[in-house]
Amino acid sequence: MIEIRRDLHMYPELSRKEVRTPEIITDYLRKLGLEVKTNVGGRGVVGILRGDKPGKTVGLRADFDALPISEKNDVPYKSKNPGVMHACGHDAHTAIALGLAKAFSERKHELAGNIVFLHQHAEEVVPGGAKDMVEDGALEGVDAVFATHMENAYPVGDVIYRHGYIMAFSDRFEIEVIGQGGHGAFPHQTNDAVVMASQLVNQLQTIVSRKVDPLKSAVISIGSIHGGEGANVIADSVTLKGTIRTFSKEVREKIILNVERITAAVAEAGEGTYRLDYQEGHPVTWNHHEETDIIVEGGKAVVGKEHVKEMPPQMGGEDFSHFLNTVPGSYFFTGSANKEKGIIYPYHHDQFDIDEEAMIIGAKTLAKAAILYFEKNN
Amino acid sequence: MIEIRRDLHMYPELSRKEVRTPEIITDYLRKLGLEVKTNVGGRGVVGILRGDKPGKTVGLRADFDALPISEKNDVPYKSKNPGVMHACGHDAHTAIALGLAKAFSERKHELAGNIVFLHQHAEEVVPGGAKDMVEDGALEGVDAVFATHMENAYPVGDVIYRHGYIMAFSDRFEIEVIGQGGHGAFPHQTNDAVVMASQLVNQLQTIVSRKVDPLKSAVISIGSIHGGEGANVIADSVTLKGTIRTFSKEVREKIILNVERITAAVAEAGEGTYRLDYQEGHPVTWNHHEETDIIVEGGKAVVGKEHVKEMPPQMGGEDFSHFLNTVPGSYFFTGSANKEKGIIYPYHHDQFDIDEEAMIIGAKTLAKAAILYFEKNN
Amino acid sequence: MIEIRRDLHMYPELSRKEVRTPEIITDYLRKLGLEVKTNVGGRGVVGILRGDKPGKTVGLRADFDALPISEKNDVPYKSKNPGVMHACGHDAHTAIALGLAKAFSERKHELAGNIVFLHQHAEEVVPGGAKDMVEDGALEGVDAVFATHMENAYPVGDVIYRHGYIMAFSDRFEIEVIGQGGHGAFPHQTNDAVVMASQLVNQLQTIVSRKVDPLKSAVISIGSIHGGEGANVIADSVTLKGTIRTFSKEVREKIILNVERITAAVAEAGEGTYRLDYQEGHPVTWNHHEETDIIVEGGKAVVGKEHVKEMPPQMGGEDFSHFLNTVPGSYFFTGSANKEKGIIYPYHHDQFDIDEEAMIIGAKTLAKAAILYFEKNN
Amino acid sequence: MIEIRRDLHMYPELSRKEVRTPEIITDYLRKLGLEVKTNVGGRGVVGILRGDKPGKTVGLRADFDALPISEKNDVPYKSKNPGVMHACGHDAHTAIALGLAKAFSERKHELAGNIVFLHQHAEEVVPGGAKDMVEDGALEGVDAVFATHMENAYPVGDVIYRHGYIMAFSDRFEIEVIGQGGHGAFPHQTNDAVVMASQLVNQLQTIVSRKVDPLKSAVISIGSIHGGEGANVIADSVTLKGTIRTFSKEVREKIILNVERITAAVAEAGEGTYRLDYQEGHPVTWNHHEETDIIVEGGKAVVGKEHVKEMPPQMGGEDFSHFLNTVPGSYFFTGSANKEKGIIYPYHHDQFDIDEEAMIIGAKTLAKAAILYFEKNN
Repeated sequence: MIEIRRDLHMYPELSRKEVRTPEIITDYLRKLGLEVKTNVGGRGVVGILRGDKPGKTVGLRADFDALPISEKNDVPYKSKNPGVMHACGHDAHTAIALGLAKAFSERKHELAGNIVFLHQHAEEVVPGGAKDMVEDGALEGVDAVFATHMENAYPVGDVIYRHGYIMAFSDRFEIEVIGQGGHGAFPHQTNDAVVMASQLVNQLQTIVSRKVDPLKSAVISIGSIHGGEGANVIADSVTLKGTIRTFSKEVREKIILNVERITAAVAEAGEGTYRLDYQEGHPVTWNHHEETDIIVEGGKAVVGKEHVKEMPPQMGGEDFSHFLNTVPGSYFFTGSANKEKGIIYPYHHDQFDIDEEAMIIGAKTLAKAAILYFEKNN
Repeated sequence: MIEIRRDLHMYPELSRKEVRTPEIITDYLRKLGLEVKTNVGGRGVVGILRGDKPGKTVGLRADFDALPISEKNDVPYKSKNPGVMHACGHDAHTAIALGLAKAFSERKHELAGNIVFLHQHAEEVVPGGAKDMVEDGALEGVDAVFATHMENAYPVGDVIYRHGYIMAFSDRFEIEVIGQGGHGAFPHQTNDAVVMASQLVNQLQTIVSRKVDPLKSAVISIGSIHGGEGANVIADSVTLKGTIRTFSKEVREKIILNVERITAAVAEAGEGTYRLDYQEGHPVTWNHHEETDIIVEGGKAVVGKEHVKEMPPQMGGEDFSHFLNTVPGSYFFTGSANKEKGIIYPYHHDQFDIDEEAMIIGAKTLAKAAILYFEKNN
Repeated sequence: MIEIRRDLHMYPELSRKEVRTPEIITDYLRKLGLEVKTNVGGRGVVGILRGDKPGKTVGLRADFDALPISEKNDVPYKSKNPGVMHACGHDAHTAIALGLAKAFSERKHELAGNIVFLHQHAEEVVPGGAKDMVEDGALEGVDAVFATHMENAYPVGDVIYRHGYIMAFSDRFEIEVIGQGGHGAFPHQTNDAVVMASQLVNQLQTIVSRKVDPLKSAVISIGSIHGGEGANVIADSVTLKGTIRTFSKEVREKIILNVERITAAVAEAGEGTYRLDYQEGHPVTWNHHEETDIIVEGGKAVVGKEHVKEMPPQMGGEDFSHFLNTVPGSYFFTGSANKEKGIIYPYHHDQFDIDEEAMIIGAKTLAKAAILYFEKNN
Repeated sequence: MIEIRRDLHMYPELSRKEVRTPEIITDYLRKLGLEVKTNVGGRGVVGILRGDKPGKTVGLRADFDALPISEKNDVPYKSKNPGVMHACGHDAHTAIALGLAKAFSERKHELAGNIVFLHQHAEEVVPGGAKDMVEDGALEGVDAVFATHMENAYPVGDVIYRHGYIMAFSDRFEIEVIGQGGHGAFPHQTNDAVVMASQLVNQLQTIVSRKVDPLKSAVISIGSIHGGEGANVIADSVTLKGTIRTFSKEVREKIILNVERITAAVAEAGEGTYRLDYQEGHPVTWNHHEETDIIVEGGKAVVGKEHVKEMPPQMGGEDFSHFLNTVPGSYFFTGSANKEKGIIYPYHHDQFDIDEEAMIIGAKTLAKAAILYFEKNN
């Protein structure tokens, strides 16, 4: 697994531009004798391993795309693709899945069920590859799905789970507030888009502070604001880009309605107009109860009771939610930090790395989960 | 004059990059036999014409720089320098001054005083060339100064004056609101610069609405706002650029104090910091009473009483104010529009042009003003 | 005049509740033999003095109502009506007019024209008595009107004039922002009227800062804000009261439109509603040019050139504007302060008083103005 | 119990003004032979019932104050104290405790432990009576405490529990924003407190929207805003009253710091000052795990598994938290609504009533909890 992971790490590929990675996966799975479908929902690869004994079918998902980040690590397996980096551990996820494919293939005769390896492209973008793979039939015949993700917020040796929602809705929006520009000395002949945009940002604060049930989580962040060119000219328009996070469909709908209502009203107040593009992101990731119990049980078998930890929900998004919205399953994290080795940086950081020991733990937990699933459901 | 103006129009030069224009002016004035100083305060040219009779010294100022605008006019004398255009009539101002230099030279024996031709570079930028020329001694020995500017808000045939302030203080500022960026899903770990900047824009509105005497004029415009890159990342900082206009030194000082106080307080409220660069612009342009009476009298002699019009003060700035802060004088506009000919666009417009007849009227009014000044003050 | 003024001062009467004052005026004028109309437009009294020689008709207006203020002055003529006070000098205005009625009556044979004494009730309220008097025909046959007002911002001995606008439009409005109250711990079940009202106050600032021509004067002040009762209960509604001042009909209309647009939009943004009551105040007071020249000339004759002063326009309102909108005329101030005597408090102050010498100056200036008017216009 | 409850209901008494109620309680408990302490921490009454068998000591708390509300119910036991009403069920809580005192007294010989009846005054105010009672030693010797509250959000027959936090921190604050008043037409001579207060309300929104971890609950509500008197006069000051709710000590401290920082900064921006009175409310109510398990077990025994329900945390506050911060325990709700009987109104409503059957259920659950506690802990 280490070898595979390091090879993938050196040749990272951006979302929806993956070529080498799916080829390597395809070759590897084919050599193992699996039935392999390629270009699933785009660049996804699905490998099907049928156990010799009858049983249910478990899907194990591993994403394989990388990020537009320049690696700062000084390691032998440093990225050779300038500006692209496996800074989110997808190289490890892929190596785990391939390792499991090999291990399960070797014990095919014992296997009372089937394992479907769901190698997914384009997890880092919205909409992600998961949606396309599901629509392209990747889950046909699959009874349950599991996935893990490297996590440097926890030390290697930990398995981290959560029942219910674990990752948030994660939507994006872009608002263009459109006024009418003009000379900075004659504001009365203009509709000042900078003033409108500023009022909009302020009013948007009231959605979380006043409109959302305080017992429920919600975030609206305006990440960027851009308008105008000089000091002397009143801007025609200002563009805001932002993100919305929540765990509740009801809250999300209320937020969207309020963003639109407030934007329209601010434009109306300032005699301007607006354009609002709402980009629906990953759905909330909801771990099913029984499958999560399996992860807990599997984790305990691998790392011991005291290293299986419950975590709070995360405001980040994950397109594994599309798999979980189709069949039952559970998504969990595998601790991958190691302070002594200086492996402490969070994902998406240009010095992100993992303690490769985590791959063994992640793989074993997934393997145990699959077997437990067969035991409980066959 | 038309020939000169059209030649200059074809070869416009940007502020502080003027080379050909001052050379042409220098040559022209030298051929007329004037004493010429070059590189005055940078690229300014000063030509001194001494009348044969003793008397006072009148300065006539003409600016000669052009703007970074691509000309859209389809005329034989269209700009041949791509992206540069005489869109503010400085070509005409220069032609007027050169024409007057020729005319006065020919009547030097009658001239009871001296005329100093103040050919100024870099009027379109801050700080402008006027300040440097004054500091370099351009006004030594000069008793009064006059200048005119083409104005398409009035038809050709009009001479437009104003006693007292005619052009505003025109300052610029840049504020960087500095917070601490982070992941868009974790606002509590950041200091959101977009939110701070928006509150700043809103609070700045209260300066004009609450802090400035309603009987006095003031403008604060934020021309541009820029911060952040994506939808998902909370921005570290946002940069605002703006302009301040007013006619009163007291109001201007109150505004500056309030901009700084409010910026500091908004940063404090949001746990951020800020950088405020205040760029002092052109001082207010104040027309002296007696010299403006001379323009009125001169204008009446040239275009008749009904075409000499008083105008309201303008919120724009003009660095002729530096000349007027040193010696008495008056700045006036010469109507240059002609609807029938389609000459209607305001200055700084890419279809700006003038009715060249305006040059005759401007020149005659300036000539008459100089002569009247000698009559009244010798 | 002093006697009359002090008598009126002791028995001040509130606007639209004047009984004794118009009776005294009526008696006084009738005793002088004037033709007197009572209950003009309510409680106004109009006395007509016809000169023996033919000529134009000049109206002299004096208002006679008092204010709901408890006088703090310790003077023999202190108000005997508790809580009511002549704190705006209308007692003096009335005494001046009655004094002039007496003086002109005595010189009736010299008088080449007619004087109409316009004793007006209810100047301190909106709408004021002037409007009603004009509608009731008080100005029939009147060619020009003049009025003066005591002014402690200037010392006794000064006559203060202004051409054009001298007093502002002065409107009032009341806005109720209506949300939906509820428990302070459950904001998502309410529409928070306090938040909406606060956003409204902030957005209203942009009218003056962005929507009004910076060369024109405008004020929007929210004088009071009231909503909610406790700390724990979200308020159903918040009521704002405010005033609008400007000198331009166009600006005023733009302001009113914007107040309504912004209020509607803020309510819309917050899912609330609103009630907006707009109470049109006194129109702008515009002094006619030739009549103001007469005041200047008359003032010079009375107090000397150096004591006739031009003043800036005042943001306060005055319903003499209704007279000036009907016939030409001019409204001026008569300095009434005297520091040495401790007469320094502005009108509407509970220690307001005047140097009674001002009555002589005011009366003489009005008399001179009437005579000059006859001379110039007969 | 019904008799007692209805008697108390007819004679409700306001917080810290309770006289008759504690006397009735005292008499009742004394007649049962309990050791009774009066005036505990003010007007509290503590009755100690010692079982004949040795064991732990369980405290049962019942609050007994009423609210300043005029009862609108038309019932035989309607309040006879005008403007005062048992609109929060404290009459029932008291009746339950007295009923239990009677029941346990009769089975004293079986009782393997002691029961301390904590009759608490002044629960409806801050600071409440609980704090004083604890400080006055009411919990001396007590090992665990339980309490129940009527709840019309659930039907009679339900027992409603929650592990961990169940009721919020509930603080109040009052902010006076102090400017400098003046004439509405001269804003530049004032510091407008209405504008400052409005900006403060808006900026306070950013605490919840930006400063609080979105995974944690927080509310800041401004319940009332009051400043200024008329339309024409700019207000000297505006007073805001508000409440803060949260479940986390860390979040609460962050909120308090931000309220103060933002208030100071807004005052600074507007050249004003401020007064901030922060009134610490009830601490968060935290149910201990084992004692809550006892409530669950006890509830199941009384109403059956399907009627024992977990509830979300409540943003309201409860001073039982002072007891729970001293000894372990659990606070739970007893369903008291009955739609068929029209008993549907929430507490603090002027038509609040309960299905008196709830008293039986509450009493039985508390009794069972006490016995279970003895069984598990003796």
